[in-house]
Amino acid sequence: MNALERKIMEQGVVVGKDILKVDMFLNHQIDVELIRQMGEDFYAYFRNKPINKVLTVEASGIAIACFTALKFGVPAVFAKKGYHKNVGSNVYSAEVFSFTKGISYRITVMKDYLTKDDHVLFVDDFLANGAAAEGIMQIISQAGATLEGIGIAIEKGFQPGGEKLRERGIDLYSLAIVDQMEEGKITLREHEQ
Amino acid sequence: MNALERKIMEQGVVVGKDILKVDMFLNHQIDVELIRQMGEDFYAYFRNKPINKVLTVEASGIAIACFTALKFGVPAVFAKKGYHKNVGSNVYSAEVFSFTKGISYRITVMKDYLTKDDHVLFVDDFLANGAAAEGIMQIISQAGATLEGIGIAIEKGFQPGGEKLRERGIDLYSLAIVDQMEEGKITLREHEQ
Repeated sequence: MNALERKIMEQGVVVGKDILKVDMFLNHQIDVELIRQMGEDFYAYFRNKPINKVLTVEASGIAIACFTALKFGVPAVFAKKGYHKNVGSNVYSAEVFSFTKGISYRITVMKDYLTKDDHVLFVDDFLANGAAAEGIMQIISQAGATLEGIGIAIEKGFQPGGEKLRERGIDLYSLAIVDQMEEGKITLREHEQ
Repeated sequence: MNALERKIMEQGVVVGKDILKVDMFLNHQIDVELIRQMGEDFYAYFRNKPINKVLTVEASGIAIACFTALKFGVPAVFAKKGYHKNVGSNVYSAEVFSFTKGISYRITVMKDYLTKDDHVLFVDDFLANGAAAEGIMQIISQAGATLEGIGIAIEKGFQPGGEKLRERGIDLYSLAIVDQMEEGKITLREHEQ
């Protein structure tokens, strides 16, 4: 078990059938030493790729993106979230449907900060249905940039996002994959040898 | 000149009379090495205080809070922003008026992550009228926690927030103070000897 997996087992709280509450260390209060370690883990996995930018979505991806980008020695960029359709012409944008909240929002990245020369590692705190990753891939495509890989803190293995991305040949690395959350009990997927 | 001040002079763009655009390194694209250095600077200034938590407001404060918290070896917590009044009973909350956008929003911190035992360093990217700092101080007061100091990346010295906080005896440390932005030219305040 890596540090994140241990923390999930120790502190994660299952709410209902598919919400894993980790805001005591990941997305409200932040265990910065843990997230620094996650940045190192992403670096160890992706370091042979020509990554020159780490992209994420505000707000809970920012900490992960910063520590990962520090390790690569490259800038981080966070896509901004908004709820209006009119976003102007100086940004790339995509609509993302949030299954958790049941509404759509729009993510935007200013054209200045993503170009055809960029080789992007996208990182985020959760992967469930893959809606945010889908939106980010649209933005990367609009910019003509190259997606080198996706690094996720917690993948919900019982939801389809991860499988869809892997089937498309995307290099997806999740630090923890939760395969089951039943009656409050969390089951993590074993690591492949 | 410190690293942030040099970066402001090299890359900052004045828009109109009072907007300083620094989203190429601070609040959209993030120069993580610069922000890591800012965390070290805040630590050097505040390290004799019994700080056990670094607090900020999403989204642009998160990177600064993370690198500062890492240096102190304590957790970071970010207040969440929302626009509805009904925030439930498990959070501390305050209303913040944004002079830039002309609207009010609400910041919230879950009660679990701020208690009367906490000694808080509040950090943020900008200080202008001090509205966000005011909201954070209300939240700290609701929790019965202690504000040990405020660390700001860029203070607008020509707006009243900084002076108001210093007059109240708050230990405020701004890495860069912009005293004037006229006809596109940025004037930084000299450091006291």
